[in-house]
Amino acid sequence: MELVFLGTGSGVPSKERNVSAIALKLLQEQNSIWLFDCGEATQHQILRTSIKPRKITKIFITHMHGDHIFGLPGLLSSRSFQGGEGLLTIYGPEGIQDYIETSLAVSGTTLAYPLSIVEFTEGALFEDDQFSVSCKRLDHGIPSFGFRITEKDKPGKLLVNKLNDAGIEPGPIYQQIKENHVVRTDDGRIIHREQFIGPDKQGRIITIMGDTRASDNDRSFVAGSDVLVHEATFGQEKANLANAYFHSTTKQAAALANEASVGKLILTHISSRYQQGDDQQLLDEARDIFPNTELANDFYQVTIESE
Amino acid sequence: MELVFLGTGSGVPSKERNVSAIALKLLQEQNSIWLFDCGEATQHQILRTSIKPRKITKIFITHMHGDHIFGLPGLLSSRSFQGGEGLLTIYGPEGIQDYIETSLAVSGTTLAYPLSIVEFTEGALFEDDQFSVSCKRLDHGIPSFGFRITEKDKPGKLLVNKLNDAGIEPGPIYQQIKENHVVRTDDGRIIHREQFIGPDKQGRIITIMGDTRASDNDRSFVAGSDVLVHEATFGQEKANLANAYFHSTTKQAAALANEASVGKLILTHISSRYQQGDDQQLLDEARDIFPNTELANDFYQVTIESE
Ligand SMILES: [Zn+2]
Ligand SMILES: [Zn+2]
Repeated sequence: MELVFLGTGSGVPSKERNVSAIALKLLQEQNSIWLFDCGEATQHQILRTSIKPRKITKIFITHMHGDHIFGLPGLLSSRSFQGGEGLLTIYGPEGIQDYIETSLAVSGTTLAYPLSIVEFTEGALFEDDQFSVSCKRLDHGIPSFGFRITEKDKPGKLLVNKLNDAGIEPGPIYQQIKENHVVRTDDGRIIHREQFIGPDKQGRIITIMGDTRASDNDRSFVAGSDVLVHEATFGQEKANLANAYFHSTTKQAAALANEASVGKLILTHISSRYQQGDDQQLLDEARDIFPNTELANDFYQVTIESE
Repeated sequence: MELVFLGTGSGVPSKERNVSAIALKLLQEQNSIWLFDCGEATQHQILRTSIKPRKITKIFITHMHGDHIFGLPGLLSSRSFQGGEGLLTIYGPEGIQDYIETSLAVSGTTLAYPLSIVEFTEGALFEDDQFSVSCKRLDHGIPSFGFRITEKDKPGKLLVNKLNDAGIEPGPIYQQIKENHVVRTDDGRIIHREQFIGPDKQGRIITIMGDTRASDNDRSFVAGSDVLVHEATFGQEKANLANAYFHSTTKQAAALANEASVGKLILTHISSRYQQGDDQQLLDEARDIFPNTELANDFYQVTIESE
């Protein structure tokens, strides 16, 4: 499970930062990749990574501002051109369907794969046997959302010594015990899994926030996250600007991370007023409040380990 | 007057070639830049040139395929963000207005400048005191167009020796003679310009073709061009593919240039099946038929001199 930051800028592309997109690689988990936002030239950024567009199965859009969506029509087209045949589902706020359908229709684009577009409002978005995703409305003027991706807990490790002590020999039966609450052995014994398995392996939680004023109202939504991705369009000295434009400062994002006791905070959506030389200053502002903070640059990649 | 090729690929972006866009710099002529097509990430390409988006006053769209239009919403937004205040006019086929208006509306984009969108069919598009632009429907399945940009002839050079011989001394009167058919001097003499001026300075002609099967039907439309920009999606060995997908080969484009006796042919819209190492082969195929051919790469720039 890795996050790859494809675009970490704000509003307009610069030479240093492209507009917003983040890939969540779930290759080991389900051989797929999810994308969060898709600013213009996201497909160009992808060309510079190992990501295959056909592996992208879901795209989540935080909000409809152009720097978060204008790369969608091109990416959808190229995914088709490059042999993508599997279902692609796009989750986005109201307007996303009109935008995509108009773009594809006027350009005469027919996709070689089924496309499903889900316009959401708030709450539970998606669930399968591995993950659930829910979303919460944020504070950005227009509807903007955060996504909380929760990996389901998995059964813990088999207690092999205890099984041996009970006279159950290694073999296919171990896998059966791991996968079922109750198993009957060939010699008729009834095995209750709970007696031979360690504590559940806790699933990971990643929360990716759209553009927003950082808010205490989001504390419970982000609480427990292994990784919180939050915007920091401005440095601390621009709190007035951040407030006026419905954005956050470094320190405001860090305060939320701190209050919600997340594992790690990653800052992104950095204004083009800041240059590479400013990164350390922005980072220091946040680390002052929440030490385990990173500031994403384009192509920054972070692995989220299972415990 | 310079052409700058911002994207010279076909269909999808590659690491070597972005999708279509060409800038016609008219900085000396009228301090403006015209754009022909605007594939995704055209604004990103522009970041790597000296072109200022606010100087772009006209955008001509050859056809509605995504690789020619998906960069429009982002460029329009950034032109606004970067201080563009002057009128921008977009000329495009049917559907361009719906596409632009939907993209701007769903993304909540308000532009700081007036935007005029002209959906055209065929014929004369535009005329001012320096240039006229006309367009012709091509052969690409969907409506696709070529643009012929004709610079108006300018009065030739004043024949200064002849004026001197006639006793007309240098001074502001020279400029008056240059700008008017008939001028009366302070001492009452009537001067007819035609007697004191050399032959007209012929205006330049540039023809930029959209995607198309190369066709003899276009001969008169491109005839007399100083520069003809024509697609060559395929090499000569793929004539069947070119025909099937309504595109041209190197040799077909060169044949048109040859029959129409243009000054220079520039090939673009090269399929991503070709790599940099193939450029010379593609070029040789065309030069076999029309020697004064160039093959454009991204950021290739050519100056079109006045005679
Ligand atoms: Zn926004
Ligand atoms: Zn086309």
